[in-house]
Amino acid sequence: MTCSCIRFKDIYYAEQQIEKTLSKMVDKAGSPELKQGFETHLRETRGQIERLEKVFEMHGESPKAVTCPAIKGIIKEAEEVAGDIADQDVLDAALTAAAQAVEHYEISRYGALASWARELGRNDCAELLHQTLEEERATDEKLTRLAEERVNRKAA
Amino acid sequence: MTCSCIRFKDIYYAEQQIEKTLSKMVDKAGSPELKQGFETHLRETRGQIERLEKVFEMHGESPKAVTCPAIKGIIKEAEEVAGDIADQDVLDAALTAAAQAVEHYEISRYGALASWARELGRNDCAELLHQTLEEERATDEKLTRLAEERVNRKAA
Repeated sequence: MTCSCIRFKDIYYAEQQIEKTLSKMVDKAGSPELKQGFETHLRETRGQIERLEKVFEMHGESPKAVTCPAIKGIIKEAEEVAGDIADQDVLDAALTAAAQAVEHYEISRYGALASWARELGRNDCAELLHQTLEEERATDEKLTRLAEERVNRKAA
Repeated sequence: MTCSCIRFKDIYYAEQQIEKTLSKMVDKAGSPELKQGFETHLRETRGQIERLEKVFEMHGESPKAVTCPAIKGIIKEAEEVAGDIADQDVLDAALTAAAQAVEHYEISRYGALASWARELGRNDCAELLHQTLEEERATDEKLTRLAEERVNRKAA
Protein backbone atom coordinates (compact mmCIF):
# COMPACT_ATOMS: atom_id res chain seq x y z
CA MET A 1 0.00 0.00 0.00
CA THR A 2 1.25 3.44 -0.93
CA CYS A 3 -0.25 6.82 -1.83
CA SER A 4 -2.33 7.19 1.31
CA CYS A 5 -1.15 10.83 1.32
CA ILE A 6 -3.43 11.52 -1.63
CA ARG A 7 -6.33 10.55 0.58
CA PHE A 8 -5.19 12.68 3.51
CA LYS A 9 -5.14 15.69 1.19
CA ASP A 10 -8.67 14.82 0.00
CA ILE A 11 -10.14 14.49 3.47
CA TYR A 12 -8.21 17.57 4.66
CA TYR A 13 -9.93 19.53 1.89
CA ALA A 14 -13.25 17.88 2.76
CA GLU A 15 -12.98 18.83 6.45
CA GLN A 16 -12.26 22.46 5.55
CA GLN A 17 -15.36 22.57 3.33
CA ILE A 18 -17.42 20.85 6.02
CA GLU A 19 -16.30 23.46 8.58
CA LYS A 20 -17.54 26.27 6.29
CA THR A 21 -20.80 24.46 5.55
CA LEU A 22 -21.52 23.65 9.20
CA SER A 23 -21.14 27.33 10.12
CA LYS A 24 -23.95 28.11 7.65
CA MET A 25 -26.06 25.16 8.85
CA VAL A 26 -25.92 26.41 12.45
CA ASP A 27 -27.61 29.62 11.25
CA LYS A 28 -30.20 27.79 9.12
CA ALA A 29 -31.29 25.20 11.72
CA GLY A 30 -34.56 26.01 13.46
CA SER A 31 -34.78 23.45 16.25
CA PRO A 32 -32.54 24.30 19.23
CA GLU A 33 -31.37 20.65 19.48
CA LEU A 34 -30.33 20.58 15.81
CA LYS A 35 -28.60 23.96 16.11
CA GLN A 36 -26.72 22.75 19.17
CA GLY A 37 -25.85 19.47 17.42
CA PHE A 38 -24.33 21.39 14.50
CA GLU A 39 -22.42 23.69 16.89
CA THR A 40 -20.97 20.70 18.73
CA HIS A 41 -19.97 19.05 15.48
CA LEU A 42 -18.42 22.29 14.23
CA ARG A 43 -16.13 22.27 17.28
CA GLU A 44 -15.36 18.58 16.70
CA THR A 45 -14.60 19.28 13.04
CA ARG A 46 -11.99 21.86 14.07
CA GLY A 47 -10.40 19.21 16.31
CA GLN A 48 -10.51 16.72 13.43
CA ILE A 49 -8.67 19.19 11.19
CA GLU A 50 -5.96 19.51 13.87
CA ARG A 51 -5.74 15.72 14.08
CA LEU A 52 -5.21 15.51 10.32
CA GLU A 53 -2.48 18.13 10.60
CA LYS A 54 -0.78 15.87 13.16
CA VAL A 55 -1.07 12.93 10.75
CA PHE A 56 0.64 15.02 8.04
CA GLU A 57 3.41 15.87 10.55
CA MET A 58 3.78 12.18 11.45
CA HIS A 59 4.48 11.60 7.74
CA GLY A 60 7.01 14.48 7.71
CA GLU A 61 4.78 16.51 5.41
CA SER A 62 3.11 19.92 5.52
CA PRO A 63 -0.70 19.81 5.54
CA LYS A 64 -2.04 20.27 2.03
CA ALA A 65 -5.59 20.19 0.67
CA VAL A 66 -6.53 18.76 -2.73
CA THR A 67 -9.99 19.35 -4.20
CA CYS A 68 -12.21 16.38 -3.49
CA PRO A 69 -15.09 16.04 -5.99
CA ALA A 70 -17.15 13.83 -3.66
CA ILE A 71 -17.57 16.34 -0.84
CA LYS A 72 -18.06 19.16 -3.35
CA GLY A 73 -20.97 17.19 -4.85
CA ILE A 74 -22.47 16.31 -1.46
CA ILE A 75 -22.35 19.96 -0.31
CA LYS A 76 -23.67 21.27 -3.66
CA GLU A 77 -26.64 18.90 -3.41
CA ALA A 78 -27.31 19.97 0.19
CA GLU A 79 -27.28 23.65 -0.82
CA GLU A 80 -29.55 23.05 -3.82
CA VAL A 81 -32.11 21.23 -1.68
CA ALA A 82 -31.95 23.65 1.27
CA GLY A 83 -32.30 26.63 -1.08
CA ASP A 84 -35.72 25.45 -2.26
CA ILE A 85 -37.33 25.10 1.18
CA ALA A 86 -39.31 27.81 2.95
CA ASP A 87 -40.93 25.76 5.77
CA GLN A 88 -38.55 25.60 8.78
CA ASP A 89 -39.59 22.10 9.84
CA VAL A 90 -39.00 20.73 6.34
CA LEU A 91 -35.71 22.64 6.18
CA ASP A 92 -34.60 21.04 9.47
CA ALA A 93 -35.39 17.60 8.05
CA ALA A 94 -33.41 18.39 4.89
CA LEU A 95 -30.47 19.81 6.89
CA THR A 96 -30.40 16.67 9.04
CA ALA A 97 -30.38 14.45 5.94
CA ALA A 98 -27.64 16.58 4.35
CA ALA A 99 -25.52 16.37 7.50
CA GLN A 100 -25.98 12.60 7.59
CA ALA A 101 -24.78 12.32 3.97
CA VAL A 102 -21.65 14.23 5.03
CA GLU A 103 -21.17 12.02 8.11
CA HIS A 104 -21.51 8.83 6.09
CA TYR A 105 -18.99 10.11 3.56
CA GLU A 106 -16.56 10.75 6.40
CA ILE A 107 -17.27 7.38 8.05
CA SER A 108 -16.39 5.59 4.79
CA ARG A 109 -13.21 7.68 4.35
CA TYR A 110 -11.88 7.54 7.91
CA GLY A 111 -12.72 3.80 8.04
CA ALA A 112 -10.54 3.18 4.97
CA LEU A 113 -7.76 5.53 6.13
CA ALA A 114 -7.55 3.97 9.61
CA SER A 115 -7.47 0.49 8.11
CA TRP A 116 -4.75 1.45 5.60
CA ALA A 117 -2.67 3.11 8.34
CA ARG A 118 -2.79 -0.14 10.35
CA GLU A 119 -1.85 -2.08 7.22
CA LEU A 120 1.20 0.18 6.79
CA GLY A 121 2.17 -0.44 10.41
CA ARG A 122 1.33 3.15 11.37
CA ASN A 123 -0.70 2.44 14.49
CA ASP A 124 0.06 5.95 15.74
CA CYS A 125 -1.79 7.48 12.76
CA ALA A 126 -4.48 4.78 12.86
CA GLU A 127 -5.25 5.70 16.47
CA LEU A 128 -5.84 9.38 15.60
CA LEU A 129 -7.95 8.50 12.57
CA HIS A 130 -9.98 6.07 14.65
CA GLN A 131 -10.79 8.79 17.19
CA THR A 132 -12.29 10.88 14.39
CA LEU A 133 -14.14 7.86 12.99
CA GLU A 134 -15.81 7.33 16.37
CA GLU A 135 -16.82 11.01 16.56
CA GLU A 136 -18.37 10.81 13.09
CA ARG A 137 -20.32 7.67 14.00
CA ALA A 138 -21.56 9.29 17.23
CA THR A 139 -22.68 12.40 15.31
CA ASP A 140 -24.54 10.27 12.77
CA GLU A 141 -26.32 8.39 15.58
CA LYS A 142 -27.23 11.68 17.25
CA LEU A 143 -28.70 12.99 13.98
CA THR A 144 -30.72 9.79 13.53
CA ARG A 145 -32.06 10.22 17.08
CA LEU A 146 -32.99 13.87 16.42
CA ALA A 147 -34.77 12.87 13.19
CA GLU A 148 -36.73 10.14 14.97
CA GLU A 149 -37.69 12.44 17.84
CA ARG A 150 -38.95 14.99 15.32
CA VAL A 151 -41.08 12.34 13.56
CA ASN A 152 -42.43 11.02 16.89
CA ARG A 153 -43.25 14.52 18.13
CA LYS A 154 -45.23 15.23 14.98
CA ALA A 155 -47.04 11.87 15.26
CA ALA A 156 -47.97 12.53 18.93
CA MET B 1 -43.14 17.30 4.73
CA THR B 2 -43.40 17.63 0.98
CA CYS B 3 -41.10 17.38 -2.03
CA SER B 4 -39.83 13.88 -1.31
CA CYS B 5 -40.23 13.25 -5.06
CA ILE B 6 -37.17 15.43 -5.68
CA ARG B 7 -35.19 12.97 -3.63
CA PHE B 8 -36.58 9.91 -5.42
CA LYS B 9 -35.44 11.43 -8.71
CA ASP B 10 -31.97 12.03 -7.22
CA ILE B 11 -31.53 8.51 -5.91
CA TYR B 12 -33.02 7.05 -9.10
CA TYR B 13 -30.31 8.89 -11.04
CA ALA B 14 -27.71 7.77 -8.48
CA GLU B 15 -28.70 4.10 -8.78
CA GLN B 16 -28.43 4.26 -12.57
CA GLN B 17 -24.92 5.71 -12.31
CA ILE B 18 -23.99 3.13 -9.67
CA GLU B 19 -25.17 0.32 -11.96
CA LYS B 20 -22.86 1.58 -14.74
CA THR B 21 -19.93 2.05 -12.34
CA LEU B 22 -20.34 -1.38 -10.71
CA SER B 23 -20.18 -3.03 -14.14
CA LYS B 24 -16.74 -1.45 -14.62
CA MET B 25 -15.65 -2.33 -11.07
CA VAL B 26 -16.44 -6.02 -11.65
CA ASP B 27 -13.88 -5.96 -14.50
CA LYS B 28 -11.26 -4.05 -12.51
CA ALA B 29 -11.42 -6.12 -9.28
CA GLY B 30 -8.59 -8.65 -8.95
CA SER B 31 -9.61 -10.74 -5.94
CA PRO B 32 -12.30 -13.31 -6.78
CA GLU B 33 -14.21 -12.47 -3.57
CA LEU B 34 -14.29 -8.75 -4.42
CA LYS B 35 -15.32 -9.46 -8.02
CA GLN B 36 -18.12 -11.71 -6.79
CA GLY B 37 -19.16 -9.12 -4.20
CA PHE B 38 -19.48 -6.47 -6.92
CA GLU B 39 -21.43 -8.88 -9.18
CA THR B 40 -23.87 -9.64 -6.36
CA HIS B 41 -24.33 -5.97 -5.62
CA LEU B 42 -24.82 -5.22 -9.32
CA ARG B 43 -27.77 -7.64 -9.33
CA GLU B 44 -29.09 -6.08 -6.11
CA THR B 45 -28.75 -2.60 -7.62
CA ARG B 46 -30.96 -3.65 -10.55
CA GLY B 47 -33.54 -4.84 -8.04
CA GLN B 48 -33.24 -1.55 -6.15
CA ILE B 49 -33.90 0.38 -9.36
CA GLU B 50 -37.08 -1.70 -9.87
CA ARG B 51 -38.11 -0.97 -6.28
CA LEU B 52 -37.70 2.77 -6.89
CA GLU B 53 -39.84 2.45 -10.03
CA LYS B 54 -42.54 0.89 -7.83
CA VAL B 55 -42.25 3.81 -5.41
CA PHE B 56 -42.76 6.26 -8.30
CA GLU B 57 -45.83 4.22 -9.36
CA MET B 58 -47.16 4.31 -5.79
CA HIS B 59 -47.01 8.10 -6.07
CA GLY B 60 -48.80 7.96 -9.44
CA GLU B 61 -45.70 9.24 -11.24
CA SER B 62 -43.47 7.99 -14.05
CA PRO B 63 -39.91 7.22 -12.97
CA LYS B 64 -37.65 10.18 -13.68
CA ALA B 65 -33.97 10.78 -12.97
CA VAL B 66 -32.51 14.15 -11.98
CA THR B 67 -28.74 14.71 -11.94
CA CYS B 68 -27.43 14.29 -8.42
CA PRO B 69 -24.14 16.16 -7.83
CA ALA B 70 -23.22 14.04 -4.80
CA ILE B 71 -23.04 10.68 -6.56
CA LYS B 72 -21.37 12.31 -9.57
CA GLY B 73 -18.62 13.59 -7.25
CA ILE B 74 -18.23 10.28 -5.42
CA ILE B 75 -17.91 8.35 -8.71
CA LYS B 76 -15.56 10.94 -10.22
CA GLU B 77 -13.28 10.67 -7.19
CA ALA B 78 -13.35 6.87 -7.39
CA GLU B 79 -12.37 6.95 -11.07
CA GLU B 80 -9.58 9.48 -10.47
CA VAL B 81 -8.06 7.35 -7.71
CA ALA B 82 -8.47 4.02 -9.53
CA GLY B 83 -6.95 5.50 -12.70
CA ASP B 84 -3.65 6.20 -10.94
CA ILE B 85 -3.06 2.68 -9.56
CA ALA B 86 -1.08 -0.04 -11.33
CA ASP B 87 -0.68 -2.55 -8.46
CA GLN B 88 -3.72 -4.90 -8.37
CA ASP B 89 -3.70 -5.31 -4.59
CA VAL B 90 -3.67 -1.54 -4.05
CA LEU B 91 -6.35 -1.17 -6.72
CA ASP B 92 -8.55 -3.70 -4.89
CA ALA B 93 -8.14 -1.70 -1.67
CA ALA B 94 -9.07 1.52 -3.50
CA LEU B 95 -12.06 -0.12 -5.23
CA THR B 96 -13.30 -1.41 -1.86
CA ALA B 97 -13.00 2.06 -0.33
CA ALA B 98 -14.75 3.64 -3.32
CA ALA B 99 -17.59 1.12 -3.09
CA GLN B 100 -17.95 1.83 0.63
CA ALA B 101 -18.22 5.57 -0.07
CA VAL B 102 -21.07 4.76 -2.48
CA GLU B 103 -22.75 2.44 0.06
CA HIS B 104 -22.56 5.05 2.81
CA TYR B 105 -24.05 7.67 0.51
CA GLU B 106 -26.94 5.30 -0.21
CA ILE B 107 -27.36 4.37 3.47
CA SER B 108 -27.75 8.06 4.37
CA ARG B 109 -30.20 8.64 1.51
CA TYR B 110 -32.40 5.56 1.95
CA GLY B 111 -32.39 6.14 5.72
CA ALA B 112 -33.81 9.65 5.22
CA LEU B 113 -36.25 8.57 2.49
CA ALA B 114 -37.64 5.68 4.54
CA SER B 115 -38.05 7.93 7.56
CA TRP B 116 -39.81 10.65 5.52
CA ALA B 117 -42.10 8.07 3.90
CA ARG B 118 -43.17 6.90 7.38
CA GLU B 119 -43.66 10.53 8.43
CA LEU B 120 -45.97 11.03 5.43
CA GLY B 121 -47.94 7.92 6.42
CA ARG B 122 -46.66 6.00 3.39
CA ASN B 123 -45.65 2.79 5.15
CA ASP B 124 -45.99 0.91 1.83
CA CYS B 125 -43.18 3.02 0.32
CA ALA B 126 -41.20 3.00 3.58
CA GLU B 127 -41.21 -0.80 3.55
CA LEU B 128 -39.68 -0.95 0.05
CA LEU B 129 -37.10 1.71 0.87
CA HIS B 130 -36.21 -0.11 4.06
CA GLN B 131 -35.52 -3.33 2.13
CA THR B 132 -32.98 -1.47 0.02
CA LEU B 133 -31.48 0.19 3.12
CA GLU B 134 -30.86 -3.24 4.66
CA GLU B 135 -29.21 -4.47 1.45
CA GLU B 136 -26.90 -1.45 1.39
CA ARG B 137 -25.94 -1.98 5.03
CA ALA B 138 -25.23 -5.69 4.39
CA THR B 139 -23.06 -4.80 1.36
CA ASP B 140 -21.10 -2.27 3.41
CA GLU B 141 -20.50 -4.87 6.14
CA LYS B 142 -19.40 -7.42 3.54
CA LEU B 143 -16.92 -4.91 2.08
CA THR B 144 -15.53 -4.15 5.55
CA ARG B 145 -15.08 -7.90 6.11
CA LEU B 146 -13.28 -8.31 2.76
CA ALA B 147 -10.98 -5.38 3.58
CA GLU B 148 -10.15 -6.84 7.00
CA GLU B 149 -9.48 -10.29 5.56
CA ARG B 150 -7.12 -8.76 3.01
CA VAL B 151 -5.20 -6.90 5.73
CA ASN B 152 -5.04 -10.02 7.93
CA ARG B 153 -3.86 -12.19 5.02
CA LYS B 154 -1.04 -9.76 4.31
CA ALA B 155 -0.06 -9.62 7.99
CA ALA B 156 0.05 -13.45 8.26
